[in-house]
Amino acid sequence: MTQPLAIGIDIGGTNTGFGLVNRRGEIIVKGGLPTTGHADLNAFIVSLRDAIVPHIEKVGRDHVMGAGIGAPNGNFFTGDIVFAPNLPWQGVVIPMAKLVSDALGVKATLTNDANAAAIGEMIYGAAKGMKDFILVTLGTGVGSGFVANGQLIYGHDGFAGELGHVIAVRNGRKCGCGRHGCLEAYTSATGIVHTAEQWLEERTDITILRNSRGTITAKKIHEAAEKGDSLAIEIFDFTAEILGQTLADAVAITSPQAIIFFGGLAKAGDLLLKPVKKYLEANLLNIYQNKVQILQSALPDADAAILGASALVW
Amino acid sequence: MTQPLAIGIDIGGTNTGFGLVNRRGEIIVKGGLPTTGHADLNAFIVSLRDAIVPHIEKVGRDHVMGAGIGAPNGNFFTGDIVFAPNLPWQGVVIPMAKLVSDALGVKATLTNDANAAAIGEMIYGAAKGMKDFILVTLGTGVGSGFVANGQLIYGHDGFAGELGHVIAVRNGRKCGCGRHGCLEAYTSATGIVHTAEQWLEERTDITILRNSRGTITAKKIHEAAEKGDSLAIEIFDFTAEILGQTLADAVAITSPQAIIFFGGLAKAGDLLLKPVKKYLEANLLNIYQNKVQILQSALPDADAAILGASALVW
Repeated sequence: MTQPLAIGIDIGGTNTGFGLVNRRGEIIVKGGLPTTGHADLNAFIVSLRDAIVPHIEKVGRDHVMGAGIGAPNGNFFTGDIVFAPNLPWQGVVIPMAKLVSDALGVKATLTNDANAAAIGEMIYGAAKGMKDFILVTLGTGVGSGFVANGQLIYGHDGFAGELGHVIAVRNGRKCGCGRHGCLEAYTSATGIVHTAEQWLEERTDITILRNSRGTITAKKIHEAAEKGDSLAIEIFDFTAEILGQTLADAVAITSPQAIIFFGGLAKAGDLLLKPVKKYLEANLLNIYQNKVQILQSALPDADAAILGASALVW
Repeated sequence: MTQPLAIGIDIGGTNTGFGLVNRRGEIIVKGGLPTTGHADLNAFIVSLRDAIVPHIEKVGRDHVMGAGIGAPNGNFFTGDIVFAPNLPWQGVVIPMAKLVSDALGVKATLTNDANAAAIGEMIYGAAKGMKDFILVTLGTGVGSGFVANGQLIYGHDGFAGELGHVIAVRNGRKCGCGRHGCLEAYTSATGIVHTAEQWLEERTDITILRNSRGTITAKKIHEAAEKGDSLAIEIFDFTAEILGQTLADAVAITSPQAIIFFGGLAKAGDLLLKPVKKYLEANLLNIYQNKVQILQSALPDADAAILGASALVW
């Protein structure tokens, strides 16, 4: 047990995952805790400490090189989480890198959760060897990490890559950010549920989903579509069209080799990605057509984000 | 006359400019020729050769390190101009770097005209010292160069940065590229003229522009607006709104320090850039608000593109 290890922490809207990772990207120990349900931010930090510190002690403090954290609205330059609408601590600036560093007694670096996943895919996953790609997370929200020339685009202020807040539908649906028509309002797990509930209210189609009115989840829509439920399939098609249109615009900016999908809704696989590919191609400028690969994350579940976060340490 | 020089060539939709530039970015000799009006591509290359070669001979071939070319739809990786809708040779692939190299007898490198301008601004102009910015050219078409982490984003295939073909208005006006609603169809010099002619047909406003129906230019709209013509001012406001909305989406992707405007329509200055700033801010996600500078190119006329193209040589 003499190898150097890095702690990777992925703070999500619902759950927080962590792992102790070696330089080869092997997760030696893995664990997690709910992000929600804590009395306050301090209580969450205490739970995180209690979950991780025993592992640090077990492998020996000397072997732990530091912690990397991925979190929504995380800023690489400042180490802060800023106004994250999908976390329990909304509307505030949280000095998360400092809090985690103090709690664990190791150096800590923070970045956006989607940026962490992009780094994970680039080093260990579907984007291995790629220099230009876009990682899109379809979870509680929609996040993204843009890699160009082999480097993550952080932007001037560390906040680059908010594809979820590109306006997909002008004057469209209200988004959690307070504006209207953001991609996230349509193509996140929350967004697709919104579409389903709205269509059930407005339309009279016969569909399995009608039994679940008010308690629909992205998973239920996915299952219904797999059973051939035509409304569920239409919901995926509608979601894919908005995603494909918006991605076609993103391609015109960074011209990536691939777009890699990650997160809960991406688990729908071809059900979502096939129509996304179709609508992407239909909307692309001719010079980009038939060039961009549409891929699903090659890393199990939360691993990409944990691995990417841990890679910040090296 | 012993200093090493680079040839910078800027091939535009209407005119082609060139210069012999030293390492300090001083243009020692400058010249130009029309891009249009030649019998064919070969005739253009002959004219270009006849215009430039005497200057090469005069300074001495030994001092000329090579030529850099900026051209619409120019590909840095291949040296080709591909399907440029705003050049006389449409719908074909032109091996321009090779043609120029053969004609001038020097090594030649090619890039997109807007990318060349971005490099020019970064090394010698308004973006000096910036690592993250967007250069937008508002000329016959709309082009762009995205710089992140101090590097131009070329993308996987060398075609990144086509902001002019981001869909600004879904199902909007027909664009030269064959699709609908591209930014270029509204906010290029051609686009703003289209708006003016269309409004004159549809509306009955009293306006100076009515005397110019059918022969309106971006310059005439600019002059009318400066005289306080309310239709002309409204045309700028409409154009600025579409530009501001689309730029707000681009900011969400690369989070730049500044957006720098360049080209014929950018000469309208505050008349265009003040409302662009207003609509940009109104459409930005909160984390980006009041951070992005809106600037006009600091380099005279075609110099940014010539300087940027010449910088490819070093």
